[in-house]
Amino acid sequence: MPKSLPTKRLESLPKNAKRVFNGVIFDVYHWKQKMYDGSTATFEKIVRPDTVEALATVGKKIIILDQQQPNLTQEKVTLPGGRADQHHNPLVEAQRELLEETGFISSDWQLLHTESPPDSKVMYSMHYFIARNCKKVAKSRLDVGEKIKSRLVSLEQLLRLSDSPRFWVGPWFLQELLRMRLDPKRKEKFRRLLFPGALADHDG
Amino acid sequence: MPKSLPTKRLESLPKNAKRVFNGVIFDVYHWKQKMYDGSTATFEKIVRPDTVEALATVGKKIIILDQQQPNLTQEKVTLPGGRADQHHNPLVEAQRELLEETGFISSDWQLLHTESPPDSKVMYSMHYFIARNCKKVAKSRLDVGEKIKSRLVSLEQLLRLSDSPRFWVGPWFLQELLRMRLDPKRKEKFRRLLFPGALADHDG
Repeated sequence: MPKSLPTKRLESLPKNAKRVFNGVIFDVYHWKQKMYDGSTATFEKIVRPDTVEALATVGKKIIILDQQQPNLTQEKVTLPGGRADQHHNPLVEAQRELLEETGFISSDWQLLHTESPPDSKVMYSMHYFIARNCKKVAKSRLDVGEKIKSRLVSLEQLLRLSDSPRFWVGPWFLQELLRMRLDPKRKEKFRRLLFPGALADHDG
Repeated sequence: MPKSLPTKRLESLPKNAKRVFNGVIFDVYHWKQKMYDGSTATFEKIVRPDTVEALATVGKKIIILDQQQPNLTQEKVTLPGGRADQHHNPLVEAQRELLEETGFISSDWQLLHTESPPDSKVMYSMHYFIARNCKKVAKSRLDVGEKIKSRLVSLEQLLRLSDSPRFWVGPWFLQELLRMRLDPKRKEKFRRLLFPGALADHDG
């Protein structure tokens, strides 16, 4: 599995940053940073591949996954997605992950949000996509490190998952679910984004 | 600055894990992991020092910080706290950070929550403490890599900060603020925890 990193990640490191460790997932960079008193200190950042997550719809439902992985003690619930470590384009990676994990494809993709803590010590972005009207075209084709079952939930069920400790999504999306619960208008806007043709009735 | 790591962090790594990189903040560990088809793969995790954050109260207000750091493009708003990299005990670290960053001490500390993603690839815990009835005993004593001003906000103002992109706190606490906005009982419980003697009137 090649570890390809978007060029922009590396561009946001200082020019004098040097890679001091080249790992399976993580690379470590060091540089000398001038401090407020004129002294210098060694600064350190981790660069890792971006991740992608898909809000994939089938009819008026959303695909979620029940996942087991080696070295995980408890099953987790996620959206389709994973590490974008095979291609520079996050959309291509999201399409690959959705197909591999669920066997579904969509011809109607849209970038919902990119979350990239600008000053974090672990540098990467999380890309959230919407994939509308998905069609099953294949069996899921799982990695040897994955045990995954997919199922469909309503938007109301997805919102309630934000209370479950087993629900693993990026921090931005979990916060967004809580914000939708705080603000019905925000929720209905999201519902129309996921299901453009649907009425705003409650289906959960 | 010594990088001391709680022993329990390392104990939760597989027994055959070996340190392959020893950094300023981050260490990298590798081990062979058996996959579902019987093959093995190299797994990788990062270990880093825990962090501490303090909900420090003065009267009916909470201390927050406006922070600049070298290499940060924008000022951020945080709670007092930082990396627990000098002592194994998170409480001692939280007390040190509060004193250094604000000059305040408290004789009434309580652990509010420890957030430790159990299966994350970057292993560390975030400890949230309550420090009640703080008293100013010194000037703030800042690191050469910090520019910090402290100010006091009400609980209502803290809750509203959860909408600000400049507000940097651990994911658990940000979610908790949103959950308090969703549930007035949760908010009032937190208010009584911060200000045990106070009436539940709105002060923001």
